Amino acid sequence: MKIKDILFEIKKYDFYKPFHITNSISTSKDNIEITLITDTGITGKGEASSSFRVNGENVSALYNSRDQIIQLIKGMDVTNYRKIFNQIDKIGRTSPSLKAGVQFAVLDALSNYLNFPVYKLLGGEKDHVVTDKTISIGTLEETLEEAEDLSKKGFRYVKMKVGEDIKSDIERLTAVNEKFNFEGFIVDANMGYSVKEAITFSDAMYRESVPINVFEQPVHYSDFDGLKVIRYASRYPVGADETIKTKYDALRLIKDDCVDFINIKLMKSGVSDALSIIEISRTANVSLMIGCMSESAIGVNQSVQLAAGTGAFAYCDLDSHLLLKECGEYKFKTVGDKLYPH
Amino acid sequence: MKIKDILFEIKKYDFYKPFHITNSISTSKDNIEITLITDTGITGKGEASSSFRVNGENVSALYNSRDQIIQLIKGMDVTNYRKIFNQIDKIGRTSPSLKAGVQFAVLDALSNYLNFPVYKLLGGEKDHVVTDKTISIGTLEETLEEAEDLSKKGFRYVKMKVGEDIKSDIERLTAVNEKFNFEGFIVDANMGYSVKEAITFSDAMYRESVPINVFEQPVHYSDFDGLKVIRYASRYPVGADETIKTKYDALRLIKDDCVDFINIKLMKSGVSDALSIIEISRTANVSLMIGCMSESAIGVNQSVQLAAGTGAFAYCDLDSHLLLKECGEYKFKTVGDKLYPH
Repeated sequence: MKIKDILFEIKKYDFYKPFHITNSISTSKDNIEITLITDTGITGKGEASSSFRVNGENVSALYNSRDQIIQLIKGMDVTNYRKIFNQIDKIGRTSPSLKAGVQFAVLDALSNYLNFPVYKLLGGEKDHVVTDKTISIGTLEETLEEAEDLSKKGFRYVKMKVGEDIKSDIERLTAVNEKFNFEGFIVDANMGYSVKEAITFSDAMYRESVPINVFEQPVHYSDFDGLKVIRYASRYPVGADETIKTKYDALRLIKDDCVDFINIKLMKSGVSDALSIIEISRTANVSLMIGCMSESAIGVNQSVQLAAGTGAFAYCDLDSHLLLKECGEYKFKTVGDKLYPH
Repeated sequence: MKIKDILFEIKKYDFYKPFHITNSISTSKDNIEITLITDTGITGKGEASSSFRVNGENVSALYNSRDQIIQLIKGMDVTNYRKIFNQIDKIGRTSPSLKAGVQFAVLDALSNYLNFPVYKLLGGEKDHVVTDKTISIGTLEETLEEAEDLSKKGFRYVKMKVGEDIKSDIERLTAVNEKFNFEGFIVDANMGYSVKEAITFSDAMYRESVPINVFEQPVHYSDFDGLKVIRYASRYPVGADETIKTKYDALRLIKDDCVDFINIKLMKSGVSDALSIIEISRTANVSLMIGCMSESAIGVNQSVQLAAGTGAFAYCDLDSHLLLKECGEYKFKTVGDKLYPH
């Protein structure tokens, strides 16, 4: 079952409403839909949802690297998927989202060949995962309105974006926690705080007994020491996201005891590094969550299959298909806050 | 495809000649052949080749833990193999060889169900691996005789057992290297040296330009610091074997920068920890070799499938089926020093 061709198609998705995080507001997203074609007629699907902010990626540049990628893997047999993973890993530094989408398309083709879902190929640990949903940065009124909507829809976990204005962040979190009964919050500063601000924020939340399950990426991605200081100063589990892209970043975070949580995103690491990070983190007793960029259902499916298959994640933040118009579902089903792969 | 039953059968294998390593001489071995039976009629095969010296295991005790094991996994679906791995991991401390054999039997059943070999399930990185063959401790004459035999048979790599008598070890290695043209040696002291002896031995070999590719387990398994001292003192790559049983041992060796090589054996780690150790070691740029206890072909097959599938090993020491009488071949083929899984 040899690789014959690979097709890229740019698909534009509009957000239902502008998505505001520290230093970034999105209203639409161009993703690359990937179709891997084998000489048996069996195909595999993947998606690259690039990130300029996190990965430095550019959609046009990614789209135009198709010829290089097909040269790397043309003629390779999908049943030797690790060999193909190794080839694709070569574009991991410049084009991590493409690495993810192409690697997943290989697994998807293998899955179609065996008539056996990817999440079972990866271990079939769970038959579904639970996702949070994200409330982006906004006014107190907007925040409460969104929180009410999520509460009504039965979400147990909410991800709150913070990091631009610590006073407003404290006010918004405290108010949402007082008014609603969410089981826990993932709080994500997207590198917006200083070390001192992060500790101040954490102390304020602790005084108000806000149940924060992960305090994500309080400081700049390069600040390994800062993460470690906050980890030991905060009563809440501290996680890395922008800091950890590759498996090598994960090992460094672990060697230096910097974090309680690692946020894996396929769009940062690809399938191959994600699998490595899972093994390393579990061995080091560092907890895991999985997040997304702006994947449509095709891309979210990639993470749902990984998350269910490995059962590795304490929290899943796989909600981008709920934020984008007309992206539907693909090989998984959303029921309330549960995602079922098939 | 649910697990219905598991059968254990003790099979006795005689060595062609007594196998002598530091503090141990073997003439025969009782292995446990494992057959996993599912409700579809599909079965999976595995083997536990226990070790009292390394794991503290006892064959009768292992044989008599069948009832506990079937209780742990009865009714579980083989397509959820990670769930079963996690259950079986609970016996990993007391019965690592059984953990390995039962976990592999699960993969073998899945492979039979999908009609897709285990090594391809694990990635299909290589279609064969190269093994060394081991020369146990003996007189100079015996050593040269065995070396001549291996040289004639075309083995490129030889594993030499040392560690009981440093003077004789130096003499044997030097003589074999002078008389034959092996590409490299894996030298295994099986914990027989002190730190100072290990360094003395290494210096002597270096003066004679003996090409040692791995200097394995010079000191006691508990001596992490000793390994590190030897690693930095020796010109040769230093490896851990008895020191590293679980993935947690691997992480500690890596955090403390103790070794250049890790020797994975399924009989120490099972399939699940072996996969973790592979990911951790590759990420840390620590090299890998894979070894065996006294597996028959059924057990060696387990390691051949892992080694070919992951392509992770710089050296394979998978020769026990060549040392035992009447153990044949199983799902792989030996051609010279090459092992082909199918």
